[in-house]
Amino acid sequence: MKNLKRIITLMTDFGLVDEYVGVMKGVICCHAPDATIIDITHNIDSHNIAQGAMILQASYPYFPHGTIHVAVVDPGVGTQRDILLVDAQSHFFIAPDNGLLTPVLTDTSQVMQVYRIPQPENVSATFHGRDVMAPLAGKLAVDRKPELYGERMAMSECTTLPLPSFTQSPAELQGVVVSADHFGNISTSIPSTALGEIGQPEDLKVCIANISINGINRTYGDVETGEFVALVNSRGFLEIGINCGNAQTTLHTKAGQEITVVIFQH
Amino acid sequence: MKNLKRIITLMTDFGLVDEYVGVMKGVICCHAPDATIIDITHNIDSHNIAQGAMILQASYPYFPHGTIHVAVVDPGVGTQRDILLVDAQSHFFIAPDNGLLTPVLTDTSQVMQVYRIPQPENVSATFHGRDVMAPLAGKLAVDRKPELYGERMAMSECTTLPLPSFTQSPAELQGVVVSADHFGNISTSIPSTALGEIGQPEDLKVCIANISINGINRTYGDVETGEFVALVNSRGFLEIGINCGNAQTTLHTKAGQEITVVIFQH
Amino acid sequence: MKNLKRIITLMTDFGLVDEYVGVMKGVICCHAPDATIIDITHNIDSHNIAQGAMILQASYPYFPHGTIHVAVVDPGVGTQRDILLVDAQSHFFIAPDNGLLTPVLTDTSQVMQVYRIPQPENVSATFHGRDVMAPLAGKLAVDRKPELYGERMAMSECTTLPLPSFTQSPAELQGVVVSADHFGNISTSIPSTALGEIGQPEDLKVCIANISINGINRTYGDVETGEFVALVNSRGFLEIGINCGNAQTTLHTKAGQEITVVIFQH
Repeated sequence: MKNLKRIITLMTDFGLVDEYVGVMKGVICCHAPDATIIDITHNIDSHNIAQGAMILQASYPYFPHGTIHVAVVDPGVGTQRDILLVDAQSHFFIAPDNGLLTPVLTDTSQVMQVYRIPQPENVSATFHGRDVMAPLAGKLAVDRKPELYGERMAMSECTTLPLPSFTQSPAELQGVVVSADHFGNISTSIPSTALGEIGQPEDLKVCIANISINGINRTYGDVETGEFVALVNSRGFLEIGINCGNAQTTLHTKAGQEITVVIFQH
Repeated sequence: MKNLKRIITLMTDFGLVDEYVGVMKGVICCHAPDATIIDITHNIDSHNIAQGAMILQASYPYFPHGTIHVAVVDPGVGTQRDILLVDAQSHFFIAPDNGLLTPVLTDTSQVMQVYRIPQPENVSATFHGRDVMAPLAGKLAVDRKPELYGERMAMSECTTLPLPSFTQSPAELQGVVVSADHFGNISTSIPSTALGEIGQPEDLKVCIANISINGINRTYGDVETGEFVALVNSRGFLEIGINCGNAQTTLHTKAGQEITVVIFQH
Repeated sequence: MKNLKRIITLMTDFGLVDEYVGVMKGVICCHAPDATIIDITHNIDSHNIAQGAMILQASYPYFPHGTIHVAVVDPGVGTQRDILLVDAQSHFFIAPDNGLLTPVLTDTSQVMQVYRIPQPENVSATFHGRDVMAPLAGKLAVDRKPELYGERMAMSECTTLPLPSFTQSPAELQGVVVSADHFGNISTSIPSTALGEIGQPEDLKVCIANISINGINRTYGDVETGEFVALVNSRGFLEIGINCGNAQTTLHTKAGQEITVVIFQH
């Protein structure tokens, strides 16, 4: 354990206008005044659990061992849905049991324990981020003893969502659009490893919407300003962008839309 | 005093595009490098003092004792309006004297001292957040001696705003819309305590805009997806929402619009 | 060195929706778990290097000596453009060599060393903020030894941009619109010092778009609500605003648009 500093990350769909995020931090500070709290994002689309799962997957591996990740996209707040505390050895996760933790729970490379947090009493029915998950994160940051806060449950009891995937044949990959980022770059479900199995970067053709792009480049600046480019993004997946432009507003893609990679005839 | 860690919260209408918030934090760090700075929000509507007062009321009680709350919604910056430092025993507050601290100053359950900060010299006339309030917060975080920074003044000299309220008769409550949050949930001025005095949750009918809702529920998921729901929100007030939807964009309510709660004839 | 606490600021055009900023902070924490990380802004317009340079200039002087400023507006990420580490004695700067550091590199009042960071290997070609600049900032926060991370290069080799400027004749100043802030206040390239050389504040007339404003005031509240006002802003430059209004949406100014200050005939 190189880093003993207690780090707690927050990811929510609360936005940055109301007091909700600040209040969660206040509650954490009441329990763990020395913790460092880091925002992943609070701009997950309202109630979009799949987007939250994807952002969680892309962010948590970059934090020090021992970090506690609190994720709140919780349309079922106050209902009988469980709250989970997952001890994945290198990281802890606290989230509602609605699929938000799918990337963690389906990672078979890690041994982990899952705890079901008891349904809270005498707290609000609409803000378990403040009343359940923030205090739990604060206490856990101090004592590091997840077993104090819930009963062990089987991972098979937890809710998981189907994550965007792809299909592969010897000469073709089929995947889907996952999301567009702030720059309008379009991330897909096709991992870089699959691209390598089909062919060399310069031999591949990417088809999306009504356009096709010849060759996979390294970076945006490999094409002229304003031109489409296909590359492997920082999450390790195929991405479609426009150098210094916005591919999303040009192509109007939607999550789930099909994207294909084939061998390109020079 | 359980928590000796110095926590400073910031709430402003500065937005998150310019350097203004970052610069305030830089100035605080020059005076109190060990302070923990937490954002409540910087997206108060420009110059909306009433909204700032409401957000402050909803957030400060969740912070540890000793926290310093800096609130800057300050259309009168650089004019003769005073800057206040309030020592409310459990919390400190720094803000312009324009009504932003109304929830604190009208809280008769607390004994507090109010200090008038001298009009600054040789500083900008347009950014007292940076030039007066941030250095004051930083110094106060270190020495905890508010009496060093201003002269005592009577609370009756301070500016307060009328806060949204409600009227109550034996069988009816009349209140107003206060605001809509990021999810489009509509918060009102009717506190949960008043609801309890009128009748049981299942016997109440809420009328707002051109709709009525029968019964007060616990949480959003108590109704079907897309249906209206009335409940007590995390601030302790009556709220109108749509399960997994946006009540604000559906009803187009405005702050101050009337809302009524009556006995429901089953 | 009054402040030994390690402070790292971040300024990017990454926005606050994706995980990018959070991930940079995670990487920094892996190297420097005790560092304090402060956001300047992440809402620089995509790829707008000049805007980033202006925000950097307006913010870094307010931070304690020893602060490390990481600035990432990097349309050339992954190409042959260099990454710079500048030791300006009182502050450190880490940024791509594309003009973003122009205000620092052209500040002749400071003696500084510039280091060229080696082109990275085995990292992403699209996110050097995460893979190069964040780890560098974290390591530098711990050891304060910039010479470990690159080779000295001459400042004359670095890329600089022409910054917005102004021209002065005995009775007239000509400058340009630089930007509008969150409130719609319009910042210009005319510094307060130049105004003083032309005449007294009450004797100056400001002409912009199709309006003119007589006299330079101290603050917004010096004119009636809804009226135009010209003043010296918190960055030390001439600014055009509307008291409790939005000058930008009223005048529709653009960066680079001309503004003139002349002697006003009473």
